[in-house]
Amino acid sequence: MRIAVDAMGGDFAPSRVVDGALAAARHSGVAVTLVGRADAIAAELARHDDRAALDVTVVDAPDVIGMDESPAAALRRKPGASIRVAAELVQRGEASALVSAGHTGASVVAAHAVFGMLPGVDRPALAPAIPTRTGMAVLLDAGATVECRPPYLLQFGVLGAVYAEALLGVSRPRVGLLSIGEEEGKGNELTREAYKLLKAAPIAFAGNIEARDIFSGAADVIVCDGFTGNVALKLSEGLVETVEELLGAELSSTFSSQVGYLLSRRAFRRFRKRLDYSEYGGAPLLGVSGLVFVCHGRSSVKAIRNAVVAAARFAADDILGRMEQRVTAQLMGDR
Amino acid sequence: MRIAVDAMGGDFAPSRVVDGALAAARHSGVAVTLVGRADAIAAELARHDDRAALDVTVVDAPDVIGMDESPAAALRRKPGASIRVAAELVQRGEASALVSAGHTGASVVAAHAVFGMLPGVDRPALAPAIPTRTGMAVLLDAGATVECRPPYLLQFGVLGAVYAEALLGVSRPRVGLLSIGEEEGKGNELTREAYKLLKAAPIAFAGNIEARDIFSGAADVIVCDGFTGNVALKLSEGLVETVEELLGAELSSTFSSQVGYLLSRRAFRRFRKRLDYSEYGGAPLLGVSGLVFVCHGRSSVKAIRNAVVAAARFAADDILGRMEQRVTAQLMGDR
Repeated sequence: MRIAVDAMGGDFAPSRVVDGALAAARHSGVAVTLVGRADAIAAELARHDDRAALDVTVVDAPDVIGMDESPAAALRRKPGASIRVAAELVQRGEASALVSAGHTGASVVAAHAVFGMLPGVDRPALAPAIPTRTGMAVLLDAGATVECRPPYLLQFGVLGAVYAEALLGVSRPRVGLLSIGEEEGKGNELTREAYKLLKAAPIAFAGNIEARDIFSGAADVIVCDGFTGNVALKLSEGLVETVEELLGAELSSTFSSQVGYLLSRRAFRRFRKRLDYSEYGGAPLLGVSGLVFVCHGRSSVKAIRNAVVAAARFAADDILGRMEQRVTAQLMGDR
Repeated sequence: MRIAVDAMGGDFAPSRVVDGALAAARHSGVAVTLVGRADAIAAELARHDDRAALDVTVVDAPDVIGMDESPAAALRRKPGASIRVAAELVQRGEASALVSAGHTGASVVAAHAVFGMLPGVDRPALAPAIPTRTGMAVLLDAGATVECRPPYLLQFGVLGAVYAEALLGVSRPRVGLLSIGEEEGKGNELTREAYKLLKAAPIAFAGNIEARDIFSGAADVIVCDGFTGNVALKLSEGLVETVEELLGAELSSTFSSQVGYLLSRRAFRRFRKRLDYSEYGGAPLLGVSGLVFVCHGRSSVKAIRNAVVAAARFAADDILGRMEQRVTAQLMGDR
């Protein structure tokens, strides 16, 4: 399993990306191809004394897509963009999967353009794993497809279930529909229509899930449109940060609190780890005909490493082949 | 300022509602009219030895709307429902505002039916105050209007700004539009169109606000459609609970952590108080031509009391009159 890594993507590229990819090669035996400006990559590689012992190759890609460029236009203008070149490597079979911490919009556009969609799937969905009381769940779409029609949500449910089986090791993941009330008639027009489709599908449909129960473990897969999913994800990140800040402020305000905090620091650290998205690696982009993992722009070395290792694992599981089979079996029967 | 209180609304009605309303009368001198089943209310009043000294009246309303009934149908069938009778009291001028902890949908339908909309406003918006790093902000719509058109979001911005002036004491509240990216072109079709309207309006428009910045204090008013707002609000509640649980689990897992927790308990209490929505009383329903405050079904006695006191304060401020003036001035100039 060779993993193509977009070395120029992310706020701390290429250094953190190279460090993370090499850590995956070093500790987990993953073969990586670093894609980007060859000279910049070489400078980073020079810091790693064991690089000759690792299965690391470099493919030059001279262009870079800036965070403030419109993705579609930029990709057309810059065929040598690292994200595009990396996707083409996967498309040609020279790598099994792609990992990028760059502009999510550019990754989605590039993946869609280079891989195309799985037959039977209209639009892609970003599917991050989120921590819950009981373990983890998959939320999709977290922002790849902003305007959705009811059939897209059905497809997200089917794709998400395949990924959840592989990620969580559950045989029949419960798929819930994010809505504003548990009763079937609740929600907006999109969710009311999607409800009917999901209910009729051969999946374990758990019905409507209220936003307050996303973290409860009531569902293994939570389906929503990309706007709502992105709001949910970003809000969670912002709120956890705010909670930590407010709690920290209160805990440092008196001596006894400070002592109390010192004594419980390890517990805080375990708690923070529990909620740290980067522990779980990147989020796959489901629905395109190629394996893509998207990481936060601010990803740490550990997060990049975890994403590369996860990409290799899911490639070895042939998750893409299983999604294609499942979509054909469950969604295309009527066509 | 007499406040009409829906005594039958909420999971713990009428006892907690009566206790909260009487606390407002007792400690803040608010005149209250309790609306609902007269015998049930009388039984609760009997527990308060000082009831004769308080300005408390009772209006009988024999019907109750159950949490599982469709609001519009139920209100038609039950003209004697407490929420309806209470709204009619306000409409007749026998009370200045209405407070209810009952089914939010029923409160919205009843308010709309009895009060009508303010001229220039198409749909109502539930506008809870949310805690931020720097103080508080107003989020609307949090669930009254699930399907929105761009002009509704503009109206929410104008209404929210008036309420925020009164609530936060700021002269020119910054109004932000909840979206998925700061750049003007980001978002879905609804928010892209609403952006243009808000930008052109005579308000302090702060542009797009990402969900992760809702709690940052970047905006005093955050505008969104009712589906998104309800998801945002409910998710926040669920996440704070989950965070407390996970943290609590870690803190009780070792002896030193437990000691640490004991020492910092006061800090935790202050922190929890900071995030406790019930501290802030109920959420007003803006846009209808009458003053309505909606509380959580599970509201504590304190929350009910705070809602009644807040209702009296905003009624005294003539916030309804100011909203009507501001909407006419800012939104109806072109008509």
